[in-house]
Amino acid sequence: MKDYALLSLQELAERIGTGKVTVEAVAHAAIERITELEPEIRAWQHFDPAQVLRQARRLDTMPANGVLHGLPVGVKDLMDTADMPTTYGSPIYVDHHPEVDAACVGATRHAGALLVGKTVTTEFATFHAGPTRNPRAALPHTPGGSSSGSAAAVACGMVPVAFGTQTAGSIVRPAAFCGVVGYKPTYGTLPLAGIKSLAISLDTVGVLTRSVTDAAFFIGALAQLPLSSALATNDVKGLKVGIVRTPHWDRAGASTRAAMTLAAQLLETSGAVLRDVELPSPCNALSEAQITIMAYEAAAAFAPERASQSDGFSKSFANLMEEGSRIGGERYVEAQALAATARAKLVQVFESVDLLLAPSTEGEAPAGLSATGDPIFNRMWTLLGNPCVHVPLGNGSQGLPIGVTLVGPRWGDDRVLTAAARLERGYAGTS
Amino acid sequence: MKDYALLSLQELAERIGTGKVTVEAVAHAAIERITELEPEIRAWQHFDPAQVLRQARRLDTMPANGVLHGLPVGVKDLMDTADMPTTYGSPIYVDHHPEVDAACVGATRHAGALLVGKTVTTEFATFHAGPTRNPRAALPHTPGGSSSGSAAAVACGMVPVAFGTQTAGSIVRPAAFCGVVGYKPTYGTLPLAGIKSLAISLDTVGVLTRSVTDAAFFIGALAQLPLSSALATNDVKGLKVGIVRTPHWDRAGASTRAAMTLAAQLLETSGAVLRDVELPSPCNALSEAQITIMAYEAAAAFAPERASQSDGFSKSFANLMEEGSRIGGERYVEAQALAATARAKLVQVFESVDLLLAPSTEGEAPAGLSATGDPIFNRMWTLLGNPCVHVPLGNGSQGLPIGVTLVGPRWGDDRVLTAAARLERGYAGTS
Repeated sequence: MKDYALLSLQELAERIGTGKVTVEAVAHAAIERITELEPEIRAWQHFDPAQVLRQARRLDTMPANGVLHGLPVGVKDLMDTADMPTTYGSPIYVDHHPEVDAACVGATRHAGALLVGKTVTTEFATFHAGPTRNPRAALPHTPGGSSSGSAAAVACGMVPVAFGTQTAGSIVRPAAFCGVVGYKPTYGTLPLAGIKSLAISLDTVGVLTRSVTDAAFFIGALAQLPLSSALATNDVKGLKVGIVRTPHWDRAGASTRAAMTLAAQLLETSGAVLRDVELPSPCNALSEAQITIMAYEAAAAFAPERASQSDGFSKSFANLMEEGSRIGGERYVEAQALAATARAKLVQVFESVDLLLAPSTEGEAPAGLSATGDPIFNRMWTLLGNPCVHVPLGNGSQGLPIGVTLVGPRWGDDRVLTAAARLERGYAGTS
Repeated sequence: MKDYALLSLQELAERIGTGKVTVEAVAHAAIERITELEPEIRAWQHFDPAQVLRQARRLDTMPANGVLHGLPVGVKDLMDTADMPTTYGSPIYVDHHPEVDAACVGATRHAGALLVGKTVTTEFATFHAGPTRNPRAALPHTPGGSSSGSAAAVACGMVPVAFGTQTAGSIVRPAAFCGVVGYKPTYGTLPLAGIKSLAISLDTVGVLTRSVTDAAFFIGALAQLPLSSALATNDVKGLKVGIVRTPHWDRAGASTRAAMTLAAQLLETSGAVLRDVELPSPCNALSEAQITIMAYEAAAAFAPERASQSDGFSKSFANLMEEGSRIGGERYVEAQALAATARAKLVQVFESVDLLLAPSTEGEAPAGLSATGDPIFNRMWTLLGNPCVHVPLGNGSQGLPIGVTLVGPRWGDDRVLTAAARLERGYAGTS
């Protein structure tokens, strides 16, 4: 992205819109950066420079009417694309060419974006890792998953924005490990049509970006929500923030604890009022319920592949299918009922605080590429459906990125993005 | 179905399982009935007798391990099928051949069912009618929509069971107009993977059958829920049933009012305790919210088709897309927030009553085939996500089917099915 790397998405869109820069020039910059780094990082499942240039030249012949006109976007390979192969990270679909774009891809294309390629996803967005390497680590470390390629591509400046999806922790965890912003909007904000279904009551479309502002701009444009204008206020004075260590705090390592402390200090410095919050007791069982729901729904969603193509499953995916098929409807219903109760209780929590501050991961990215880390701190928020923003806060003791999650009430995305932008700015001011 | 028409699904499965009848014989009976009536009724989008017989013969060579072994099932043409074309009721997809079954179809196939064909759906499960005719009416009347073919096929004995989906009123309304049972389980009970997405926070997979017992048997098998055993108790003594006339009672015609009175009497005779219930005030705006959510989500889900294939839309679908694209995220979020509030209020209602009794339709099936009737009495329940069973109660003043909807608490499917079975039996005893 070279010269464009320091511009926000909105600034870049304005330069393209006013003719100061062509989409082709933007495409060339992205292609150059990807060509340079891809042999090492392997963020892309499909990347065809000629196709990108054709798209860019066509966009340059058109009026820049779309709000995303010319902006380079990475598309997670869990999402159908009519002009690019779509593997869902599985050998079963290695030759799969969908006829129709996923709805969010179609909307992005229609808004004029430059679709740069398909980013690596773990197998069916679960735990069997792809080849992608964490660009922030000198030695091989996981970028996290399942939005592995999207996080890595944004982290090393290949694209300014890439789609992610989260069913357990697949946006926040890779964002945390790669030191970028990960924004999981309120459940249901963007359409799931044309995205390979994993666990439909959890699957959430979101985005990985370099900044909170870019995340708000991109999702706001697609969902027709005024998220960018909310951010413009950027004021957190008097905002009540509850510090939630979650039932899994004993699994938080030193770097995560340090990040939580730092975030609390920075928010206080900005005028927010912090206090510890203990979540209502049904929330203690949410992570277990998320595991139950994800496995049951995944086994149901993959009934056709289980019947005839299970040879193509990795061991870990086969295990998930096996586990899911044994759960039974009654345990599933219990887990969903618990989630409904917890959601109602959380509404009450948000009557006394405006936002929650919580850990994103156990710690820095684990070494090696064979596993993608544990989503233990993310599962509960995905099941609750609340909006989450991961804000990077520099590096931890091993020299790899750390950060925290801000959680808002359902449909309180504007509020959580505003605080996240303030936290990001506060950190930039200290570093 | 001839000789098999009087058997329940479970009885038919037992006869097949013990070798008393072959799947091929069942297939022949279904083919004969369809061949006889289809020229008049036009319930099928795809029906290939040779393909059905091949399937049946193959099933006869296999052990009857699946719980649905040999049972003839109609599949709504909104659901992907790997061995049959899938049009979604739209000329855009007239040559569409999916690679993979929808998840619920795959599970049904894997459980040994005989997939008889694809039943007619209205265009993308909305309001542009297909060619299907109501088999209960001498002159052309709508079978309702969008699960038009499924309701008609079950009503005239072509198949004992057929899949439906409901986003506004697409299971309950055609069930009511055709005089069959329509069961919309709790939102999320069966997977949506591989079903053309219309409005994902509303889309619900369910079933049309000849009896409540069959509906419980079929959905219970797929969702691994003990719904059939719950039904075995069949006892509603002391059950508290709230009569909900809904905010739209002024639109209920004489036949609908008569059906509500009859249902209340029959339930009381069975020992249930009835009283009028006024829903909490947020519920008064639910139908409007459902319209907003459906239009917004549908416009989002069809972004790719809107961009390049809108020539293939009917006028009414094009209008829905236009309406949906103008709603904007803020109105959508307001509607979702209202739904969340109403769901919480309804939980409180279900602390004082066990079930609700509500109208299914404005009245009997309207004359003509150009429109499918209005889902005004169904929209709110679909948005709330509560389980609904339509129970037929004979004919109204025009000689066409009438009936009522029983509504249970979320995940209280066993309770609502039990009461529905009791009501069905009570009606059979009086008629």
